[in-house]
Amino acid sequence: MNILEFLISPSDAAKRSGPHDKVVLSSRVRLARNIRGVPFPGHARKADRVRAFETLMPAVQSLNQVGSDAFAESMEKLSQNEKKVLVERHLISREHEAKGVGSGIVLNREETLCLMVNEEDHLRMQALRPGLQLGQAWMSLDSVDTDLESRLEIAFSEQYGFLTACPTNLGTGIRVSAMLHLPGLVLGEQINQIIQAVSKLGLAVRGLYGEGTEALGNVFQVSNQMTLGESELEIVERINKVLLQIIEHEENARLTLLEKKAKVLFNHIGRAYGTLANAHSISSKETMNQLSLLRLGVDIGMIPGTPKSLVDELFLLSQPAHLQLKTPDKLDAEQRDMLRSDMLRDRMREVARPDHLGVVIPPKAAA
Amino acid sequence: MNILEFLISPSDAAKRSGPHDKVVLSSRVRLARNIRGVPFPGHARKADRVRAFETLMPAVQSLNQVGSDAFAESMEKLSQNEKKVLVERHLISREHEAKGVGSGIVLNREETLCLMVNEEDHLRMQALRPGLQLGQAWMSLDSVDTDLESRLEIAFSEQYGFLTACPTNLGTGIRVSAMLHLPGLVLGEQINQIIQAVSKLGLAVRGLYGEGTEALGNVFQVSNQMTLGESELEIVERINKVLLQIIEHEENARLTLLEKKAKVLFNHIGRAYGTLANAHSISSKETMNQLSLLRLGVDIGMIPGTPKSLVDELFLLSQPAHLQLKTPDKLDAEQRDMLRSDMLRDRMREVARPDHLGVVIPPKAAA
Repeated sequence: MNILEFLISPSDAAKRSGPHDKVVLSSRVRLARNIRGVPFPGHARKADRVRAFETLMPAVQSLNQVGSDAFAESMEKLSQNEKKVLVERHLISREHEAKGVGSGIVLNREETLCLMVNEEDHLRMQALRPGLQLGQAWMSLDSVDTDLESRLEIAFSEQYGFLTACPTNLGTGIRVSAMLHLPGLVLGEQINQIIQAVSKLGLAVRGLYGEGTEALGNVFQVSNQMTLGESELEIVERINKVLLQIIEHEENARLTLLEKKAKVLFNHIGRAYGTLANAHSISSKETMNQLSLLRLGVDIGMIPGTPKSLVDELFLLSQPAHLQLKTPDKLDAEQRDMLRSDMLRDRMREVARPDHLGVVIPPKAAA
Repeated sequence: MNILEFLISPSDAAKRSGPHDKVVLSSRVRLARNIRGVPFPGHARKADRVRAFETLMPAVQSLNQVGSDAFAESMEKLSQNEKKVLVERHLISREHEAKGVGSGIVLNREETLCLMVNEEDHLRMQALRPGLQLGQAWMSLDSVDTDLESRLEIAFSEQYGFLTACPTNLGTGIRVSAMLHLPGLVLGEQINQIIQAVSKLGLAVRGLYGEGTEALGNVFQVSNQMTLGESELEIVERINKVLLQIIEHEENARLTLLEKKAKVLFNHIGRAYGTLANAHSISSKETMNQLSLLRLGVDIGMIPGTPKSLVDELFLLSQPAHLQLKTPDKLDAEQRDMLRSDMLRDRMREVARPDHLGVVIPPKAAA
């Protein structure tokens, strides 16, 4: 089956909801695992990589949690654009996008479990959830990991824990992360303060597509830096606690903006709506930033009757690989900017015109 | 009678139409005249100025062309904001706005004839017409001038012609000007070329409020520099010829944009509409520039069912003194930007959403 036919539609993907999803777009837990006695993918010859792939794929596919209706494919069978679509859905990493023969992907029907074979490690397993659900994601992934250990000989050292290609993953091999939408902290100019505080707690704050990417659309990824010296559950709980604090800061920042600078906020949101609904050319970057403001508008009640999921769907559909799906011709950036604006003008008809009179201004925002 | 009650409503003022008014907003002819033997206003003592005022006002008011239903008032009787409104209507100069005791204004019922008493000269008479109607404006003003000569002793020298306070007006004392809307030449990046060419022909190109002001909203004022050595009619005809050429260049520039950069044009116009209809704070400068694009949108058929007069009305209503009329409280710039956006959001409901499908793209634009 084609990955594009397999994937949940952008509309359905955007309709998923979870706790705190005004601020937390999604939660993810990832485990890195390797097979004992087989060189890491980056050091392996092609034959070794293919052998590891052939061992891993059936083992992974036989997992109960993966299911018989999963999508499983070798990376070279996917087109460049299909791989980019997977990156835009946050299902695979940019590094995995570059892989071909000897690397693979296994994705369950619900898109809550995605495994990358021969990325940087032999196996990178990810559990994905909408909203803030790190505990649930961790528990489901832990059970996958337990089952997998009965099928494969995992490289493990009594001294170091799980062995990984990069020492930054050594030990638990866990990476816990959440995608946060923080327009309040950005508009309230508190974001740098928050990033510094979070960094001091040993967490990394990154942009939309992870390491080294920009925080487009006021979306930030928060994840753990350390994988050694703490148990998986301790790491999950520590991040969860920090995330709850960031959520509170973001909510307070929004209340303060509403209380002290409502007109400025309305101005940003109104203009974002006007631009998205009427432009005839718009870049990906501008779109993300305007959609971020539109999402904030929905959250504060300024866009009556418009579900947040519509904004999230447009966020997905606006990205380059998703746009490319609309036409067989290879689009250049200029053509993409036009096609994006055509799509947005059309879909924005479903979005109500902003109405600031519907916004409840808090009598007194929290400190 | 109060000047604000006297003035034609912005809506009615904007509904006036004339030849070539897609490009030419208005035509004006001005004559500078002085009374023999009385010092020029800038060199006169207050008593002299008041005496000249007392001679001039009844003489001017008795003119048939002025009529008994005209507005006639001493400048000190007008509030600061009323005077600013007159500047925004292009009825008096910025210099006249600063005047008080001993200076006056006489405006006929149709607002086609406006006389400033004791501006830089004793008398500056202006005939105003919508669109390109310099000949008509000149003829009507010539008849006013003829009638006036029978009532007053005008300072005239056989050698120099009419004597004026500033030598740049000496001779005929005529200033012929037109207000042009040139978004095509600005967007097509040909405007500087045109300004240079026009300057070489001895004409001045200025901004929205005349000398030393910026070309807000792509509006330019073209006027003669020389007042000596040619007859009034020669000057009028020469400018008229140049204006017809500028109109042709502007129309060609618009066709070329439509033919070669339609998407860019639609993008500008769509975004302008989106911003005007949804902002919650907007400066005067941004408003003029966006309304200019909206007017272009109406002209090319992209804003179905919306009359150009509505855009022209918004252009008037968006200006500071007109906004100040909406409230007794003295507005600062920030408050004005908010009130302006409130007015625009409200009135833009009458403007149809831009639809590029209604635009006829020329098969081949002229060279």
